[in-house]
Amino acid sequence: MFTTEQKDYYSQQALSNFAKAGIVLTEDEKNNIEFADFGLGEFEETGLILITYVNTTRVCAKELVLLPRQTCPEHRHPSIGSEPGKEETFRCRYGVVYLYVSGIPAVNPHAAPPQGREAYYTAWHEIVLKPGQQYTLQPDTLHWFQAGPEGAVVSEFSTTSRDAADIFTDGGIIR
Amino acid sequence: MFTTEQKDYYSQQALSNFAKAGIVLTEDEKNNIEFADFGLGEFEETGLILITYVNTTRVCAKELVLLPRQTCPEHRHPSIGSEPGKEETFRCRYGVVYLYVSGIPAVNPHAAPPQGREAYYTAWHEIVLKPGQQYTLQPDTLHWFQAGPEGAVVSEFSTTSRDAADIFTDGGIIR
Repeated sequence: MFTTEQKDYYSQQALSNFAKAGIVLTEDEKNNIEFADFGLGEFEETGLILITYVNTTRVCAKELVLLPRQTCPEHRHPSIGSEPGKEETFRCRYGVVYLYVSGIPAVNPHAAPPQGREAYYTAWHEIVLKPGQQYTLQPDTLHWFQAGPEGAVVSEFSTTSRDAADIFTDGGIIR
Repeated sequence: MFTTEQKDYYSQQALSNFAKAGIVLTEDEKNNIEFADFGLGEFEETGLILITYVNTTRVCAKELVLLPRQTCPEHRHPSIGSEPGKEETFRCRYGVVYLYVSGIPAVNPHAAPPQGREAYYTAWHEIVLKPGQQYTLQPDTLHWFQAGPEGAVVSEFSTTSRDAADIFTDGGIIR
């Protein structure tokens, strides 16, 4: 997905953000950071940097890093068989995150979708998360989020993560 | 449980430890810190300081603070009806935590139970957690933990927390 130079650069960006959030990682975790570009090849616009601490059949915990103005694209977590979809709590640790969910739309939202992809952003109820603030998403809620101008670090506490089951509004996305 | 002076003092200790771990809290969270003394009235020896970020029917996330050498006493999380017991991941953020679970006992454990309560500590398989290190406990596993000489901050990622269902080895404990 990336050249070695790109990977080194984004790793440094990620580690710098984790340091700003006061988050200590093991060497193994530092060497296994996940860079998701959702198959769009526009990582700085649409992308997400992740470390998964734990993901069992019941519980998942991750740290997310967003580069400045980077967007995690609109998606939802459907139920799988008899199990309700993934339930997620996002807690901001550093920077600002603009989170959008289904509901009464913001009149003047702080974020704008990545250029050319506006059609795939339909949820406009805005939640602003600053360090220490958090929001719990109910299963199957359409949502997307974007960092402010300084980037962001966000802790995610959730039920089991099954990325391949996520349903994105943009049909061109591959997770 | 505490005098106003004690509560202020322990609150300051907790906030100082959260700051050392780089954890940002809202004013509301700072004013609602939980101090558990497990009904023993020896808080500095047997006790736990907690902030619960989220506790739904599926997922729970907390931050724990332990004062220097403070002990969370031995207990387990039993199954409730058809639901398996609580599954917990402890991730150390600051200080050192000595975690003890059922298994091959440590020959020279780093921690010692609170004085006079030795009989209620039976799990001696030792796991040492320094910042960035974590351990996932299977449901119904007997466990206890103690901070090192500087205290500790520990993130807990788990299934639903039902403190009243916990089974403590020491029958004198009230949670």
